[in-house]
Amino acid sequence: MPRVLILYYTRTGNTEKMARLIEEGAKSAGAEVSLQTIPGAAPEDLQGFDGIIIGSPTYYGLPAAEIIKFLDDSVKFHGKLEGKVGAAFSSSANIGGGNETVILAILEAMLVHGMVIQGVPKGDHYGPVSIGIPDERVMKQCRSLGERVAKLAKKLAG
Amino acid sequence: MPRVLILYYTRTGNTEKMARLIEEGAKSAGAEVSLQTIPGAAPEDLQGFDGIIIGSPTYYGLPAAEIIKFLDDSVKFHGKLEGKVGAAFSSSANIGGGNETVILAILEAMLVHGMVIQGVPKGDHYGPVSIGIPDERVMKQCRSLGERVAKLAKKLAG
Amino acid sequence: MPRVLILYYTRTGNTEKMARLIEEGAKSAGAEVSLQTIPGAAPEDLQGFDGIIIGSPTYYGLPAAEIIKFLDDSVKFHGKLEGKVGAAFSSSANIGGGNETVILAILEAMLVHGMVIQGVPKGDHYGPVSIGIPDERVMKQCRSLGERVAKLAKKLAG
Amino acid sequence: MPRVLILYYTRTGNTEKMARLIEEGAKSAGAEVSLQTIPGAAPEDLQGFDGIIIGSPTYYGLPAAEIIKFLDDSVKFHGKLEGKVGAAFSSSANIGGGNETVILAILEAMLVHGMVIQGVPKGDHYGPVSIGIPDERVMKQCRSLGERVAKLAKKLAG
Repeated sequence: MPRVLILYYTRTGNTEKMARLIEEGAKSAGAEVSLQTIPGAAPEDLQGFDGIIIGSPTYYGLPAAEIIKFLDDSVKFHGKLEGKVGAAFSSSANIGGGNETVILAILEAMLVHGMVIQGVPKGDHYGPVSIGIPDERVMKQCRSLGERVAKLAKKLAG
Repeated sequence: MPRVLILYYTRTGNTEKMARLIEEGAKSAGAEVSLQTIPGAAPEDLQGFDGIIIGSPTYYGLPAAEIIKFLDDSVKFHGKLEGKVGAAFSSSANIGGGNETVILAILEAMLVHGMVIQGVPKGDHYGPVSIGIPDERVMKQCRSLGERVAKLAKKLAG
Repeated sequence: MPRVLILYYTRTGNTEKMARLIEEGAKSAGAEVSLQTIPGAAPEDLQGFDGIIIGSPTYYGLPAAEIIKFLDDSVKFHGKLEGKVGAAFSSSANIGGGNETVILAILEAMLVHGMVIQGVPKGDHYGPVSIGIPDERVMKQCRSLGERVAKLAKKLAG
Repeated sequence: MPRVLILYYTRTGNTEKMARLIEEGAKSAGAEVSLQTIPGAAPEDLQGFDGIIIGSPTYYGLPAAEIIKFLDDSVKFHGKLEGKVGAAFSSSANIGGGNETVILAILEAMLVHGMVIQGVPKGDHYGPVSIGIPDERVMKQCRSLGERVAKLAKKLAG
């Protein structure tokens, strides 16, 4: 049973809605899921998971400072996340408003940790993006991400 | 009167529609505009402009190979584009499908040329993105980009 | 006389050394320069400048959280920085260690502000990168960036 | 026994040297390796591998047009590469010259294919970067990448 951590920062509630849909997907694929918010979670909470998914709204094309602070502090466990599955998602006010660059920023940090990332051949290739409140398309992308991360984490942890 | 070149690759016609809207915007700001397609244009055609705008559909999160080939061949004029205004736009099948990374790839090449780039505080910050056929939002973003490039090119060329 | 603000976060002192070299370059091109650290500077300090240059060490391929926090807080002046010149620089422990992605992250935030960015046709195309303590190459790149920003800011403010 | 494909474009020979070092690493980890050049390889050659590593020199901050052409043409096998391991490397004339953005461009295309990517916690986090002729550091990074891809491909193919 793969253990998946979903971490997110939310202000309007859209990123939180995405997090709950991803949780749903991961559970449907048999994962044990922990949903935590930033601020709130500490780098220590990264331990003991096979997959870690991080979500953020889009502020200046980048993840919220709170997310970056958490990533900076995760240096305490540098090397310990190697080989764990990583994934990212973002919410944004606009198409073309920096939603992809938010996801790529989180994925870059995960690569520096030596984590394992998988893209999606259909839909939101780098990770789910919601423009405003999650619609049907986003709901599907989020559930699918949860499932995919759970499956890959199971394979790699097994 | 600033001279603006709009270069694009199109398959479905969506990128071409965007190019014509950008042309409209640039003309409304007093620019003399040349609209050219890739393939078709040669690196030599980059000469004599104050602003250069390049558009591409989204293939694997990157500009079409034809655009990249054109950029590679533009090395012939390396240094000659320094200080010219650059901008980019993309069309894509999906939100989250790589549309921002296409634009950033083109902007990166323009920075290597020493070109000058300006973002947009409202809307499609890095450059206009169309998901499928350009809608009202995209039309506005495209016209606005044309205007902005024409104005900045005028200021810098003056 | 263009007014240039150089903002940086430093821990080992390498980013600070770069900041002072950039200051030197900007002054040599006739700019009035303000050098400020983050933490320390407030978003209010962004006002009254024609060019803003931001530097950071490389943490997880991204700027330090303190820099991102400052950028998030700069939303208070959203729209007010439009047309100002922006530039970025980074220090890093390794080649291939995320130094370019730090610079691009800062440049992306500047584009969202509607700022104007210029690349460099020779050398560190997106902005100066130091691997460890700044060497001769880096010193040259930094001084050159300061000069370039001062000149472009003068042109645009004029 | 994992099967690994190394594809590269080379002009000066530096990218080729890197490819041969990666091959060495992958073989040392028990992989069967095929080394192919672009131009030369066809998208059909992507079939039958558990891991695919692509390398390019740095042209305008992006992979060479030949590499992008190959990636565009790989659409023929879209969906067939899902779950395969992907990795990238680049050679460049300068530090800060676009070497990381070349690697990220290739990785983005691989994510669009649904491939699996792993970063490195020590050294060249996104993939090996050589500034000019590969030195000791680069040789180590390249061999290590070959080993890592072979091991991950074995785990995922098993």
